[in-house]
Amino acid sequence: MSSFTVTPDDLDAIALGGAFLGTGGGGDPYIGKVMAKEALATYGNVEVVDADEIDDDTLCVPVAMMGAPTVMIEKLPAGGEALEALRGLESVLGRKVGALICAEAGGLNSTIPFAVAAATGLPLIDGDGMGRAFPELQMVSFTLHGVKASPIVLADDKGNTAVFGTIDNHWTERLARSAAVDMGGAALIATYPMDGRVMKTAMLRGTISLIKRVGEIIAAERRAMRHPGPALCEACGGQRLIRGRIVDIERRTVGGFARGKATIRGSDEDAGQVFAVEFQNEMLVLTDDAGTVRASTPDLICALDADVGLPVTTEQLRFGLAVELIGLPADPQWRTPEGLALVGPGYFGYGHDFVPLGGTAAAG
Amino acid sequence: MSSFTVTPDDLDAIALGGAFLGTGGGGDPYIGKVMAKEALATYGNVEVVDADEIDDDTLCVPVAMMGAPTVMIEKLPAGGEALEALRGLESVLGRKVGALICAEAGGLNSTIPFAVAAATGLPLIDGDGMGRAFPELQMVSFTLHGVKASPIVLADDKGNTAVFGTIDNHWTERLARSAAVDMGGAALIATYPMDGRVMKTAMLRGTISLIKRVGEIIAAERRAMRHPGPALCEACGGQRLIRGRIVDIERRTVGGFARGKATIRGSDEDAGQVFAVEFQNEMLVLTDDAGTVRASTPDLICALDADVGLPVTTEQLRFGLAVELIGLPADPQWRTPEGLALVGPGYFGYGHDFVPLGGTAAAG
Repeated sequence: MSSFTVTPDDLDAIALGGAFLGTGGGGDPYIGKVMAKEALATYGNVEVVDADEIDDDTLCVPVAMMGAPTVMIEKLPAGGEALEALRGLESVLGRKVGALICAEAGGLNSTIPFAVAAATGLPLIDGDGMGRAFPELQMVSFTLHGVKASPIVLADDKGNTAVFGTIDNHWTERLARSAAVDMGGAALIATYPMDGRVMKTAMLRGTISLIKRVGEIIAAERRAMRHPGPALCEACGGQRLIRGRIVDIERRTVGGFARGKATIRGSDEDAGQVFAVEFQNEMLVLTDDAGTVRASTPDLICALDADVGLPVTTEQLRFGLAVELIGLPADPQWRTPEGLALVGPGYFGYGHDFVPLGGTAAAG
Repeated sequence: MSSFTVTPDDLDAIALGGAFLGTGGGGDPYIGKVMAKEALATYGNVEVVDADEIDDDTLCVPVAMMGAPTVMIEKLPAGGEALEALRGLESVLGRKVGALICAEAGGLNSTIPFAVAAATGLPLIDGDGMGRAFPELQMVSFTLHGVKASPIVLADDKGNTAVFGTIDNHWTERLARSAAVDMGGAALIATYPMDGRVMKTAMLRGTISLIKRVGEIIAAERRAMRHPGPALCEACGGQRLIRGRIVDIERRTVGGFARGKATIRGSDEDAGQVFAVEFQNEMLVLTDDAGTVRASTPDLICALDADVGLPVTTEQLRFGLAVELIGLPADPQWRTPEGLALVGPGYFGYGHDFVPLGGTAAAG
């Protein structure tokens, strides 16, 4: 994958692709897109560079927003707090950041790093730590490679900052989550500082170009009056899971996460069947009415509006909505025992073992 | 007040006096005394110096434990975390700390700074920020003088640290409180960094010698088989409020604070009357059965066991216990409008105006 320049217009595709790979969570990328477009218009375009173009001793830092997606929707970040977080981290480390990383190539966090890259003039590396969206800070490939989330710096829209030094990445999640809640529900973070040498193995590569391509496919197919599902499956190695209409939706907020279940009555070739999608911010498990697991975290369950072909977040799921669900295989690192311990069904409290896309198992 | 040396044996008196000025809160000084005795035995005695002996450009830093007293009782601090917090603050500021301050000359925090002083070899300045115990971080004379609580460093017994930079001292309380809760209920803190020049006006002077003298009086009177109440009133300018037996006690934990009310049936010259003491960690208001306020925060309501003459914390209040309550006037700074806004009855949710000791008002 070679490097490329991102213009304000490219952000439409990137946000669209980020919403698709967000598997329903990670917040609506629209806000991040607004921030990033404004930043690019003010400071200039952003260079997305291939990992191999980064020097081994360059300090690479993921930037992201941490908090509840519902808060993010209501609270357009002031912008300065991401820079504040980045500068805070530089001050703690006594080193200059040389390149930015996208922590989460799904949802809101797929576009926020572009705003920071534009404002700082730093390149953004083509890749991320999840290859999708996940709800917690430690759920990144960096953790699998022994990279520490700390020191982490949080900055809020009021001018408060927090720096945590922690014994492991679960502790970072715990302490930073509380601070983000106190700060009004969301904060900008700079975390997982790593050298270029480490980044080259610890990062999931190419996911920024992937979400850009996904967004371009969705836009092109919609312009051609086609539903983008088939073209996306072909481009991403995915499979159409089900198509149907939501007939029931349960929601509850548990520990800051939007949990719930959507019941979907199948249509087209799935007519006569009933499915359930369970979500915790992201869509995590799809089961059929026999209790068989059709798709499961860490594989991606991506939702498109069956009529208009646009990605649907879990907040947008509502009674009567027609959806098409598409499954994408997770990055191979997530399917290892270490990966599954971090983001597999067991961590989220489901009783079944991981079932790779294509396989089946009875739900626990 | 001239400077003096504190030996391990002196810590008995200091802990006793700290328990008295703790007005029932701030945690049992016993744990802090154990820590401090061990530190003095290992590293040597501690020099308590008069504020005027400190250079104007010396960096002075209060050290304390932050958290729920009940947790502190169960969790003997590892000791190293106070040093960790202090070193963390030095690293953030890029300056060496030259002298330590006691944040709270009441409860547990009256003895913890001695452990840190012994381990670092730094002098401890004779004074504190409260002249008693109060439940929240911003409730110090430093706040009245415009000293910022941030940067504040927290360290826990597991090896986690947090640094907050905040827009005001209420925000520091809010963010640091959450982190202390996450860290297991309590953390060691280094906060309110200030130059010697600022310390000399912002600190309440002489309170370390005061608690030492109070403790020595309690010990001497008990050895002489006298109840220490009268001698303490004479030495501290206090007044005997009431004497009686606890006939009812209500407790609830609200927002991390141990709130409650003790009902006391008067004895001796108070026979025939019923009183109520309301507490939020510390004893804050004393009313009689006509609803008249007999004593109120920020003035000190100190409890002694009426039989054995030792200070009683609010956790130790129980049905049947005979107590003598002694009122001490708060430092004049606490009785100003600014002081009352920070620690007066209104801040704690009581409807009455502040009634200085000796005056009376109907409870709101």
